[in-house]
Amino acid sequence: MDPEAFRSAAHAVVDVMADYLDTLESRAVFPAIEPGSLRPLFPASPPEAPEPIETILADYGRLVEPNATHWQHPGFLAYFATTASGPGILGEMLIATLGQNPMLWRTSPIGTELEQVVVDWLRQALGLPPAFDGLLTDTASTSTLIALAAAREACGGDVAARGLAGRDDLGGGLTVYASAEAHSSVEKACMTLGLGRASLVRIPVNERFEMLPDALASAIAADLAAGRRPIGVVATVGTTSSTSVDPVAAIADVAERHGLWLHVDAAYAGVVAMLPDRRASFAGWERADSIVVNPHKWLFTPLDASLLLTRRMEVLRAAFSLVPEYLRTLDRAAPVRDYNEYTPQLGRRFRALKLWIQLRWFGLDGLRRRIEAHLALAADLAASVAADPDWQLLAPVPFSTVCLRWRPAAVAARADEPAVAERLDVANAAIMDGVNRGGEVFLSHTRLDGRFAIRVAVGNLRTEARHVDRAWELLRAAAATQSIP
Amino acid sequence: MDPEAFRSAAHAVVDVMADYLDTLESRAVFPAIEPGSLRPLFPASPPEAPEPIETILADYGRLVEPNATHWQHPGFLAYFATTASGPGILGEMLIATLGQNPMLWRTSPIGTELEQVVVDWLRQALGLPPAFDGLLTDTASTSTLIALAAAREACGGDVAARGLAGRDDLGGGLTVYASAEAHSSVEKACMTLGLGRASLVRIPVNERFEMLPDALASAIAADLAAGRRPIGVVATVGTTSSTSVDPVAAIADVAERHGLWLHVDAAYAGVVAMLPDRRASFAGWERADSIVVNPHKWLFTPLDASLLLTRRMEVLRAAFSLVPEYLRTLDRAAPVRDYNEYTPQLGRRFRALKLWIQLRWFGLDGLRRRIEAHLALAADLAASVAADPDWQLLAPVPFSTVCLRWRPAAVAARADEPAVAERLDVANAAIMDGVNRGGEVFLSHTRLDGRFAIRVAVGNLRTEARHVDRAWELLRAAAATQSIP
Repeated sequence: MDPEAFRSAAHAVVDVMADYLDTLESRAVFPAIEPGSLRPLFPASPPEAPEPIETILADYGRLVEPNATHWQHPGFLAYFATTASGPGILGEMLIATLGQNPMLWRTSPIGTELEQVVVDWLRQALGLPPAFDGLLTDTASTSTLIALAAAREACGGDVAARGLAGRDDLGGGLTVYASAEAHSSVEKACMTLGLGRASLVRIPVNERFEMLPDALASAIAADLAAGRRPIGVVATVGTTSSTSVDPVAAIADVAERHGLWLHVDAAYAGVVAMLPDRRASFAGWERADSIVVNPHKWLFTPLDASLLLTRRMEVLRAAFSLVPEYLRTLDRAAPVRDYNEYTPQLGRRFRALKLWIQLRWFGLDGLRRRIEAHLALAADLAASVAADPDWQLLAPVPFSTVCLRWRPAAVAARADEPAVAERLDVANAAIMDGVNRGGEVFLSHTRLDGRFAIRVAVGNLRTEARHVDRAWELLRAAAATQSIP
Repeated sequence: MDPEAFRSAAHAVVDVMADYLDTLESRAVFPAIEPGSLRPLFPASPPEAPEPIETILADYGRLVEPNATHWQHPGFLAYFATTASGPGILGEMLIATLGQNPMLWRTSPIGTELEQVVVDWLRQALGLPPAFDGLLTDTASTSTLIALAAAREACGGDVAARGLAGRDDLGGGLTVYASAEAHSSVEKACMTLGLGRASLVRIPVNERFEMLPDALASAIAADLAAGRRPIGVVATVGTTSSTSVDPVAAIADVAERHGLWLHVDAAYAGVVAMLPDRRASFAGWERADSIVVNPHKWLFTPLDASLLLTRRMEVLRAAFSLVPEYLRTLDRAAPVRDYNEYTPQLGRRFRALKLWIQLRWFGLDGLRRRIEAHLALAADLAASVAADPDWQLLAPVPFSTVCLRWRPAAVAARADEPAVAERLDVANAAIMDGVNRGGEVFLSHTRLDGRFAIRVAVGNLRTEARHVDRAWELLRAAAATQSIP
């Protein structure tokens, strides 16, 4: 495709993109299709001959767009939103065209140094001290894996070199601590790193789903007594189910006492630290060894962009650095930041570019206003739910996610009887499913204290009050079709 | 940014992109800058107020474009090329706009099922049997990490659950085998997975840099005798330094005899299997447990896109599956492909979309013709080098990469004397550096048999004969300024 053919095709694609963004609300957020129904729409074999871009784009409009889950729809209130903001998309367009691979300074000087700039801008925006350096990764899963690999390395056994198996000096196994509500990525990192799911000790939470620091201290003491070696603690600010906030300062006290790596998972909620009057939720995170905050969640950045900050870059480097001859460059005489030395992957995308464009286009002030608006939308919904005798808030609402269920006043006194509890779960699953099938909004669920909880997660740049209001209206309408005998 | 403002800004960005692609050859492939010189060009603090997109794009043109290593330049002959083809860029534009996250079928039905379609199209294009299923990951590092995690899981110790540390039943440690020339990603995967660098046993190669299967068999026997537990072998088709080809069939014999997981790293060269008359290099790879081929290398796909094929998807799932309640969906009653169960990451990009667009726009036939052209360019250069008495080919040229050095005929007889060898290394480093500083082409190096080797790696979609010819001309001109006493 020569540059002029590309220019013409790309202008056509821009209109497809803008039309899509302009017509989002005319679509069902989640399409009415069943698993396995799409694959048969495509040829079983790849094409031998070239096809014109017009044909491909027509098929895109016919086969791809209608069968997407519309994450950009303002009614997308499921999981945690990932918004592709306008300036973020422009950033991705330029990233794709420049085709940088900032694995080495030499393979992308601007990719490397702009990452340093943007990481530090974000650090400042979050109110963290200059001792934090960091990098951009693809996802929070990778950021947390890197953090726990550093914890594993920091424990002193030279695990990167010697591994974990067949060693007498590591005692009865290494252990990592996180709350019962911590994200599955912590457990998955333990699996990947060879620590195993069994290495993750789940610490109980209080009635607000916050880790109990005394229980953490007890668990560590018990493991030490049993000959196990604690290496790290993950505290979460904004858990996935209920967005609860672990008491980071108290956890940092325990971690420091035992010399454990403290990683703070603020993948979703971290951006709230950009609001100085909301920093109380984060008290103590400046004492962490590492922190993850995902711009591709609530900072409106297209997938993928996860920010890993750390006060101990040199430990990350010890865990991941390998410099074979074909990656050695003449620049290495001087100290050069080669980002591949800090990550499990070698190749890297130029993620800093989209963040640089976005941070300038919104300005910190613009980002703060949008985050504040989302916090207000969630607070309003929470107030409505709390005021309705037939509905129940299942968790506090520290950020922009509301966990709720229908629990008609008539059965409130019997709600914990097993038969009633079971019926409430079934009814709430049916309510959510009914709302999702309507296509105006899209919700997901979790379980809290064993109860089916509908989550309304605000965080999409395009979501306004009317969308959250409509979700609440639809939930109540769907509940009206249910009854608990 | 409302849809109409986005439309207008995106059209402006398209012109920036097309102008860039149109003017690539007017740029120095590698910019004449020093490490640390770019960061001071940007404000030390993030902007508080929003800035207009015009200002940001002007700064992009002024600060970003000129300071990139131009991977898209036809004179980029370093490392292995990553081309952002026109249709690939169009794919990235649509990926960014749709903002899919195909972690679950439910979070992107089209993202999930189109990935199944494209993975199978690529399998067919490569001539592999239907027993191979697979997935798209970000990089070959991740693909190989997944493969070795599966090898670790397949060894029977339930490592995902129980981990590696503090166990008596794993013997003196798990071992993985790869040639002395295998890519650093294999070693890095061993580090990440808790096996440690020491778990990787490097098998010697012959004078063509190909793994010696007898040496592999001996190493395995020795490790078994010493109480270690071999778990996997990585064979490489197209090593990074010299693109040498391990004898996969003979290695498969050894792996099968011992029940080891066989992973084939064909990240660079795998696409050559699309040419039926070139499949001899791949003989035996259909017996592998897993294979990695990177579309973002020689299939002209923008970063990132790595294809991991495997005959044992269920083992990958055992190594990585975790399904917490907030990822459980009502669709799970039926068998649903939720790709996050096979990867260390949860969030995923919709990479299948760009591959689907590319495969259709080029057609298999178009892709084959371009790969053949690159093979021919490298063969021509290799012939020129071989015919020049002052130059030396340092390795066979099975694909599109030529490893060469200047070794004037006058010193040929003394080339292995330490003092001369050292001077030859210094001279060749200077030759490469001089050529790179000229900016017309960009080369990288490696070491082969301890000797500094200049690599000329053809694989950029935009590279034509004149660029390779010019590289050869520039190398000889730079050599003319050198002398070996």
